Amino acid sequence: MENQTVTFEEFKKLDIKVGKVISIENHPNADKLYVLKIDIGTEVKQCVAGLRLHIPLDQLQNKSVVVIANLQPVVLRGVESQVMILAASNNDEVVILSPAKELPAGSRVS
Amino acid sequence: MENQTVTFEEFKKLDIKVGKVISIENHPNADKLYVLKIDIGTEVKQCVAGLRLHIPLDQLQNKSVVVIANLQPVVLRGVESQVMILAASNNDEVVILSPAKELPAGSRVS
Repeated sequence: MENQTVTFEEFKKLDIKVGKVISIENHPNADKLYVLKIDIGTEVKQCVAGLRLHIPLDQLQNKSVVVIANLQPVVLRGVESQVMILAASNNDEVVILSPAKELPAGSRVS
Repeated sequence: MENQTVTFEEFKKLDIKVGKVISIENHPNADKLYVLKIDIGTEVKQCVAGLRLHIPLDQLQNKSVVVIANLQPVVLRGVESQVMILAASNNDEVVILSPAKELPAGSRVS
């Protein structure tokens, strides 16, 4: 993957936004997953994220995150995920990305 | 753009990484641009970024940023830009994205 270049037009297809986590709970049916509601400015989207083994629930509540807002929705263990949270990882450590300063939900990333 | 969905495969083509700004200077030939050297773990890449009117130079020095590492290089006012820094914007305010906790340069974002 890493050696393949991507055009700016391909990159621009992604709708990347600042989102605010307005609720978070454990997935009812998967030990590694959270189910979150994320305000992306124009609406609230549901997200299923594999962050549960890496980031405590209360560290995500009310946090600003960065999401891909226009990925095709997927169903993960019976729960629909409509957006994806961006996170950086190094070996077993996983951390979310966030804007260096608080910006309103829905702020565009480019 | 925003209503068009993107597949996970299209998203995965992007090589998004944590980078560390190791040098930054004003573009010699464009008032709005910086020229940065960014350590992306395996190598150091040059970046031309339109952040100069928004973020003071010393606030970017040594900072962890998030870059698209495999965009096709472009030449901006005579200087090659090999990677793109991700930033969030709201009206006139522009802020960089960064990992919530320090991670090594080259850490993968997904």
